[in-house]
Amino acid sequence: MTRIQQQYAFLTECLKLSEIFRQALLPVSRRRENDAEHSWHLCLMAITLAEHSNQPVDLTRVLKMLIIHDIVEIDAGDTYAYDTAAMVGQHEREAKAAERIFGLLPADQAIELRQCWEEFEAKTTPEAKFAAAVDRLQPILLNILSGGEKWREHGVTKKMVVARNQHANDGACAVWAHALTLLDDAVARGFLPAE
Amino acid sequence: MTRIQQQYAFLTECLKLSEIFRQALLPVSRRRENDAEHSWHLCLMAITLAEHSNQPVDLTRVLKMLIIHDIVEIDAGDTYAYDTAAMVGQHEREAKAAERIFGLLPADQAIELRQCWEEFEAKTTPEAKFAAAVDRLQPILLNILSGGEKWREHGVTKKMVVARNQHANDGACAVWAHALTLLDDAVARGFLPAE
Repeated sequence: MTRIQQQYAFLTECLKLSEIFRQALLPVSRRRENDAEHSWHLCLMAITLAEHSNQPVDLTRVLKMLIIHDIVEIDAGDTYAYDTAAMVGQHEREAKAAERIFGLLPADQAIELRQCWEEFEAKTTPEAKFAAAVDRLQPILLNILSGGEKWREHGVTKKMVVARNQHANDGACAVWAHALTLLDDAVARGFLPAE
Repeated sequence: MTRIQQQYAFLTECLKLSEIFRQALLPVSRRRENDAEHSWHLCLMAITLAEHSNQPVDLTRVLKMLIIHDIVEIDAGDTYAYDTAAMVGQHEREAKAAERIFGLLPADQAIELRQCWEEFEAKTTPEAKFAAAVDRLQPILLNILSGGEKWREHGVTKKMVVARNQHANDGACAVWAHALTLLDDAVARGFLPAE
């Protein structure tokens, strides 16, 4: 296979990201958001909110992480943020998926995107911290826009949302502070209980 | 409104991109692809195929264009690539949409993203040429993967596909050459007539 044929094989496989559905509802149609459109919205958030990153970031690296961060879910599935039982073995399943799916690419690119995914997962670089913050802030916005329906369905409280997502503060503290005001308002409107 | 509130208003409005459906079918579920997941797949194509750009490009600018290029369709709707009647007045409708939707942002960002969209539309810079090439190559891939169903439904021939999309050659001639071999194969398999 030529490089372009390998790249096309990868790009074809990745179209399956549109078939992986998340818990959060889209505000207009109220259907569950899929991983492909979620990844796009994170990219839009990153370019819009980059000025609020706690540290200066290389935006290309942030965007690469956000574009590829959920591709492992093609094999491993989406793990709901508040489902602690489903999280057992999650990283191993996802690492195996990364091996297979990025492995469709020419070897140099497979290594590059695998490292990019691992950087995102480790959340230690400024780029990964900002990307991870955006990945936490987006479902909070969606849940608020849909009146908290999925939060109530799964028994999620504001205390749980804060505990699970507060590392967004490490990437973009000003946006996290804004999200906290939205969460307080959501509690006041009965979208989810405080605790 | 604070800057973050304005930015969140824009990000909320843009979630409607998931409600704009295109003609091309996704290969697994065979449902029509929406603009949000299309935009994500273009970003993935851009980072995967960047080495094939005819000219060196600033990848951040390419990605910004691809992330925002279809946002105007929230108001203007998707115009099918082979529907010449629907194209009348398309740019005016889209320019009006750009004014409204980017206008939700703080003024400096509204100007920046409006210019980014206009750069994409003009297809004169190396970044815009490469981004536009990717935007042309992706639906060809999807149509081939779905056996040409939508091409036949709309009476599209290989000659029409080449005429409509050949400016992809200005952005990434090696990938365009690959697409031409895929199109020849698609004709041989009866997915669409030659002319």
